[in-house]
Amino acid sequence: MPTDYETGLGRNAANYTPMTPVDFIARAAEVHGDRLAVVHGPIRRNWAQTYERARRLASALERRGIGQSDTVAVLLPNIPAMVEAHFGIPMLGAVMNALNTRLDAASLSFMIQHGEAKMLIADSEYATTVREIVRQAPHLQLVIVDDLLGPGPADIPGATDYEALLAEGDPAYAWRFPEDEWNAITLNYTSGTTGNPKGVVYHHRGAATNAVSNILEWDMPRHAVYLWTLPMFHCNGWCFPWTVALRAGVNVCLRKVEAQACFDLIRQERVTHYCGAPIVHSLLANAPDALRAGIDWTVKGMVAGAPPPSSLLARTSAIGFELTHVYGLTEVYGPATVCAEQAEWAALGAREQAVQKARQGVRYHLEAGASVFDPETMQPVPADGETIGEIMFRGNICMKGYLKNEEATQKAFAGGWFHTGDLAVLCPDGYIKIKDRAKDIIISGGENISSVEVEDVLYQHPAVLAVAVVAQPHEKWGETPCAFVELKEGAVLTADELIAFACERLARFKVPRTVLFETLPKTSTGKIQKFELRQRIGSTTAIDV
Amino acid sequence: MPTDYETGLGRNAANYTPMTPVDFIARAAEVHGDRLAVVHGPIRRNWAQTYERARRLASALERRGIGQSDTVAVLLPNIPAMVEAHFGIPMLGAVMNALNTRLDAASLSFMIQHGEAKMLIADSEYATTVREIVRQAPHLQLVIVDDLLGPGPADIPGATDYEALLAEGDPAYAWRFPEDEWNAITLNYTSGTTGNPKGVVYHHRGAATNAVSNILEWDMPRHAVYLWTLPMFHCNGWCFPWTVALRAGVNVCLRKVEAQACFDLIRQERVTHYCGAPIVHSLLANAPDALRAGIDWTVKGMVAGAPPPSSLLARTSAIGFELTHVYGLTEVYGPATVCAEQAEWAALGAREQAVQKARQGVRYHLEAGASVFDPETMQPVPADGETIGEIMFRGNICMKGYLKNEEATQKAFAGGWFHTGDLAVLCPDGYIKIKDRAKDIIISGGENISSVEVEDVLYQHPAVLAVAVVAQPHEKWGETPCAFVELKEGAVLTADELIAFACERLARFKVPRTVLFETLPKTSTGKIQKFELRQRIGSTTAIDV
Repeated sequence: MPTDYETGLGRNAANYTPMTPVDFIARAAEVHGDRLAVVHGPIRRNWAQTYERARRLASALERRGIGQSDTVAVLLPNIPAMVEAHFGIPMLGAVMNALNTRLDAASLSFMIQHGEAKMLIADSEYATTVREIVRQAPHLQLVIVDDLLGPGPADIPGATDYEALLAEGDPAYAWRFPEDEWNAITLNYTSGTTGNPKGVVYHHRGAATNAVSNILEWDMPRHAVYLWTLPMFHCNGWCFPWTVALRAGVNVCLRKVEAQACFDLIRQERVTHYCGAPIVHSLLANAPDALRAGIDWTVKGMVAGAPPPSSLLARTSAIGFELTHVYGLTEVYGPATVCAEQAEWAALGAREQAVQKARQGVRYHLEAGASVFDPETMQPVPADGETIGEIMFRGNICMKGYLKNEEATQKAFAGGWFHTGDLAVLCPDGYIKIKDRAKDIIISGGENISSVEVEDVLYQHPAVLAVAVVAQPHEKWGETPCAFVELKEGAVLTADELIAFACERLARFKVPRTVLFETLPKTSTGKIQKFELRQRIGSTTAIDV
Repeated sequence: MPTDYETGLGRNAANYTPMTPVDFIARAAEVHGDRLAVVHGPIRRNWAQTYERARRLASALERRGIGQSDTVAVLLPNIPAMVEAHFGIPMLGAVMNALNTRLDAASLSFMIQHGEAKMLIADSEYATTVREIVRQAPHLQLVIVDDLLGPGPADIPGATDYEALLAEGDPAYAWRFPEDEWNAITLNYTSGTTGNPKGVVYHHRGAATNAVSNILEWDMPRHAVYLWTLPMFHCNGWCFPWTVALRAGVNVCLRKVEAQACFDLIRQERVTHYCGAPIVHSLLANAPDALRAGIDWTVKGMVAGAPPPSSLLARTSAIGFELTHVYGLTEVYGPATVCAEQAEWAALGAREQAVQKARQGVRYHLEAGASVFDPETMQPVPADGETIGEIMFRGNICMKGYLKNEEATQKAFAGGWFHTGDLAVLCPDGYIKIKDRAKDIIISGGENISSVEVEDVLYQHPAVLAVAVVAQPHEKWGETPCAFVELKEGAVLTADELIAFACERLARFKVPRTVLFETLPKTSTGKIQKFELRQRIGSTTAIDV
């Protein structure tokens, strides 16, 4: 029976609005219309102009028959059109599907077909791939961005130029809030290390919630200047296109992550914030000192994708950068835990501090729960730093589910929590510490070896730039660790030297039996592709030394 | 027909959690449990302890029969129990009704009866009032807080001591998220300048949204130290009890706003933030310089309740305080617009800057709309700084409605916007500038006179501490302005001198015909009570000079 607190006190147009991050750009334009919003080479547009371009895009899409719940795929680097797409497409209730620009045509075609995209907006740099895609999807409407810092126009029959498309649109287009904040806003395919990629569906409520959470985690001030080192096609740039709008900040665009270009932009635009996988931070931290000349303010970086090695944390701190370590995955809109710093860590030595900071930490501010569970009992593991369980999430920063895949969706949400597949322990202070992806655990003679633990040790060697440890089949032990190592420029190191180094720091059974010096295959987001390394090993067995 | 983006992609326990600010204290305790949460005289409690006390409170209430949607009234100054009530009461789905401690027993009894409170938690300072209330509500459960900085225990038969109540509760009480984020969280009675006060019902979603918005408006960093100069019974302290928890900040309690006590606490606790009506800021800004010794950091103040006079803005800036001007009312959870500063204002002279900053500004970050409408056509007035309309709000920072008053609720939300009753113009930059409460407009010879405009001019006189202008009946003109003036300590000024001062700065018809030097009646929140001044004038007509 309704109480007096319900009777006559329902939702109405005045007191209830569906949450949406699209509104963030409207407010930025209203209140800070004259402030810089997007920088890209000679292009400098303010929030009023950017809002206008997003509205033109929405209006033009509508005129071309795109509507509610239609998918619009984009294949773009971090350029202004990519920022605009994050607002223009959801403005009319359509769903943005940002594709990974480093994937092959077959993978992309799968996604476009599975997501039933009606239109593809692509940069001319990917013309070759786009031609292949279009061959398999003749009804796909095609829009090509001829970016002024790109390779020039692409001649693809039937394609519309992006600027011509915008010219079709109404700059005063009256966009509408979504009817329901649960409506889909974007579609993001997982990297699919095994089998076909899954289509992760984000909703307006979650996107807005994570965009706000990013600010809370980072104490991100208004008008922050954000450098786009993180691909926007990766979990919608961890929701930062919406975060930057909410801060009326500056999007400093970047087609390609290179140290010189990054530092030039940091200096010229007085960049305050950027995100990326450890490899990105490593690139900046290990660049020649001369590149950093004149940068005398603290630049804040957010790192995720893999735990930051202690050497990286020490190095970034030495150059005056401040890293915040976050963890998450596509299904939770990018980061959804943060290794929140504690005042008492300041008293620890550098090494011990790095150990603390390399942990995955605690739930994001506006996520209701992140913990490590025994997946059998669905009870949290004891906070002993020893008992391994699975990291699970619940709350408003979780996907709607996987598109057209109810089975996978139900499996992922079994027991009322999202199952990440990542194995971890709970430390006594309640912080999550990842041990491994379930499939990355190496089982040697019945003992579990965390590949992350072995990598952490190898990273301590001064000659090592990047390392990945995977299981190698072994006749006697079942599996043993095999290390793939990339050395720093000019560094010299033998396998025996590295093994000797590891022997001093690891239990004998955890020391790699094989060390291979090779360039590591990385995903577009800087994650090392262990499945590729496993393929390289094949069924070669390790020789017992 | 549901699309693929809906099928199998509904809300479930993993991906949807009702929004609630109650969760903010849980996270503060989880992540920053050892950090200081509440300071009150010798009491220094961390977030773990404060969370435990809130859970004890919830558990004890439940054991005493309080349940979902039951009202618990509180009559408390800004002491730790008041912070705890903001979490403990909603933890079990009950509704907190914070009562204004300066009201008389008759008014409070009306509220307790109308809100159907089952329990009253009161400070012993109000024992006399409480005895009268209980006499009229014999079934009301009574809990008395014997605060260690209060006047000592009160002997009221049948009352439970607050600490004894907490002792009954379970410190590990498993509180539950509300079943629906639309559920009521608090009940706040309007000050009721005419007729009976109305019971404004807040919901969990709105309280959480405004708590987050406060952070965004103020760039409020984590671990901010917040001085409780603003009564928590006023719009739940503009939602700041929840904001401070979300920032894992410090609540610096204060039974009474006095300059010496405020500055002592600012210095000792390194206070960074505080809120209040102009009178509070004026008290601090005009205090002897010696009181501020040693405070060498910027203290940020939020001011609302009346537009800050330019002299106040100048003075606070001179002492190194930074004021943010916000505007709102009970129905929108306290502040819901902000006078967002623009970079170009820095180039203006002090007087012109003050004019900019005294405006009500633009919508709060997470409020969908705030504008000035013609209430007849429900269209925004032109942004010409001239056309007067009514300020209206819409979005997630609007009340559920008025308790047991569907007629008033429907009237307030007519046309899909909340009608404030405040008259304003839209400036060319889109900022709202208040002209007056509808009933405060003075109509003289058919011309509208904004009492705020006249007050602004009188405030410029160096001898004036506070001023209020109301309409006085006039035989010829219908109404003329009458000024009630409070002088600064030691200042001397005659009515004629002040009228002469006004003549130089105002159109003749706007100059007060009558000037009365009297102490101004103020509400508990520092708002000048104009209805009281109107009663003082009664039907005395002004003599034409």
